[in-house]
Amino acid sequence: MPAMTRRVALRAGSALLAMAALLPFASMPVQAEAPQLKTQVPGYYRHALGDFEVTVLHDGQIKLDTKILKNLRAGEMQKLLALQFRDNPTPTAVNAFLVNTGKQLVLVDTGAAKVFGPTLGQVVANLKAAGYDPAQVDAVLLTHLHGDHAGGLLGADGQRVFPKATVYVAQAEANYWLAADAIAKAPEAMKGFFKIAQDATAPYAQAGALKTFTGTTEVLPGFKALPAPGHTPGHTGYLIESKGHRLLVWGDLVHNVAIQLPHPDVTIEFDTDAAVAARTRKALLSWTAKDAGLLVGGMHLPFPGLGHVREEGRGRYSWVPIDFAPWPDAP
Amino acid sequence: MPAMTRRVALRAGSALLAMAALLPFASMPVQAEAPQLKTQVPGYYRHALGDFEVTVLHDGQIKLDTKILKNLRAGEMQKLLALQFRDNPTPTAVNAFLVNTGKQLVLVDTGAAKVFGPTLGQVVANLKAAGYDPAQVDAVLLTHLHGDHAGGLLGADGQRVFPKATVYVAQAEANYWLAADAIAKAPEAMKGFFKIAQDATAPYAQAGALKTFTGTTEVLPGFKALPAPGHTPGHTGYLIESKGHRLLVWGDLVHNVAIQLPHPDVTIEFDTDAAVAARTRKALLSWTAKDAGLLVGGMHLPFPGLGHVREEGRGRYSWVPIDFAPWPDAP
Repeated sequence: MPAMTRRVALRAGSALLAMAALLPFASMPVQAEAPQLKTQVPGYYRHALGDFEVTVLHDGQIKLDTKILKNLRAGEMQKLLALQFRDNPTPTAVNAFLVNTGKQLVLVDTGAAKVFGPTLGQVVANLKAAGYDPAQVDAVLLTHLHGDHAGGLLGADGQRVFPKATVYVAQAEANYWLAADAIAKAPEAMKGFFKIAQDATAPYAQAGALKTFTGTTEVLPGFKALPAPGHTPGHTGYLIESKGHRLLVWGDLVHNVAIQLPHPDVTIEFDTDAAVAARTRKALLSWTAKDAGLLVGGMHLPFPGLGHVREEGRGRYSWVPIDFAPWPDAP
Repeated sequence: MPAMTRRVALRAGSALLAMAALLPFASMPVQAEAPQLKTQVPGYYRHALGDFEVTVLHDGQIKLDTKILKNLRAGEMQKLLALQFRDNPTPTAVNAFLVNTGKQLVLVDTGAAKVFGPTLGQVVANLKAAGYDPAQVDAVLLTHLHGDHAGGLLGADGQRVFPKATVYVAQAEANYWLAADAIAKAPEAMKGFFKIAQDATAPYAQAGALKTFTGTTEVLPGFKALPAPGHTPGHTGYLIESKGHRLLVWGDLVHNVAIQLPHPDVTIEFDTDAAVAARTRKALLSWTAKDAGLLVGGMHLPFPGLGHVREEGRGRYSWVPIDFAPWPDAP
């Protein structure tokens, strides 16, 4: 082994020395030539779906404890997390999906803004980092009216974040969360959830820009709503299709990918009807696993939340994320 | 289902109309309010390792056919790829790892520049996108001297891409590729590989900035070289450690994660000694799988190439990528 030499500050280039002169002395270790940047890459990811351009937007992450999951022993859940080298509580992504069809700019869910705390609320910043502006969004399709999906509709100023957009949500979802007496009737612990849903949609409703739909229907060209109830009454997946390429954005079908794919029976305490939620999850996992050509996108799957479901036998499944790829990745 | 209205160009905001006026008419579909951007997010990813800041840099991807893999039937390889929803040929990442220790900026491998074609060569662009400049790099540690690892040392102008950097490589690697008579002695089909290695390192050698090391040794503070021979004679992994947090950058231990983790016996035709390469792979997979606290980084693992090895029994392993996380992700 040869003698290794170490660089010293005297060898820094003039540009760096100029930069160093602007910094307080105490923060400059003698040998720090290139300060650590301590920033993450912007939280967006582009994927080609036929003629559609999909941009997944990261809203941030929130830690979810297995205490809020039901129907599996804590020790078994811990084992499943360890298999994926994940901690408990599990940092859990919140994603939204922006689709530019070439004719319309469509956002599926909006993130949480600040209704669920400081670790979320990056959808608009990442939409801008990805090269778009909220004012360009033509339509927002909501999977459901929980705060981490609809909260991003409302600006800190009380105005619409997407002033040009028409917002679409299932009629059953609107009936449940937006009824005039919904807050009054809600259990005390749930009143906040109802208020978030109502506040977020109110300025769109006032502007005549909140529309509802029922059943399995093509909400916009290329966007088919598929009822996926249980997590909420009107919880909806969107099957997005262009030139035969298909992406199912399944909303909150899965919150913890390490636990609920091997054990689809595991429900979460936010489910309005846990039994129906589990039945919906099993049906959609079975379908998506049988269709290798179908890409899946999920709001709480690890960012960018795109991948495939693999059948593991005995009603168990696993998640196979797509690989990072340059544009165009999969036309 | 209510009647859905479609947006028309007349509803575009004034800023967009101004932008549209700059575009040739023929390229503007009537309803295209927001042009598709068709760019990918920059190819870097930041990860905190103790006090070190790791930035993985994506050089691009290259398609590798299973024809170049040995010791497993083609049908079995196809099944393993299908399990991961991957195609054959498989788009395969080329990664490099930039580590800012706070005192030194250290790059592990350099990508291919243009020696392996147009789909690679993005390390410098992504290093810049990540906020650094090639002139800031203090040291380059090479895992080996193949073109997609050392090629990025050399600029299109024939000059050093990292003018301040000292380049470190194992003595056995230098002996094999850089000997004065190496090209003359090489088989015809391999001469190009030797020339790439010699061309890439020549300007550093001329400047006295090419250093070699032998055996298991701390090349720089926090960077321990671990001989991992077989793929090439001096193929080296680097164990990077800060504050008890450890990352093993294992170079080319694995080229096809879907096939060589379940079947570590599978070798690749670029191996200079396939039997030794397989033995090294088995030893390192066994070690990394037993040490859940050890993070692994690989040059051909799906970008960002960071994750853990899981033991599946009977000498089989699988790959568990880390989740995308904001900075700081795992201090």
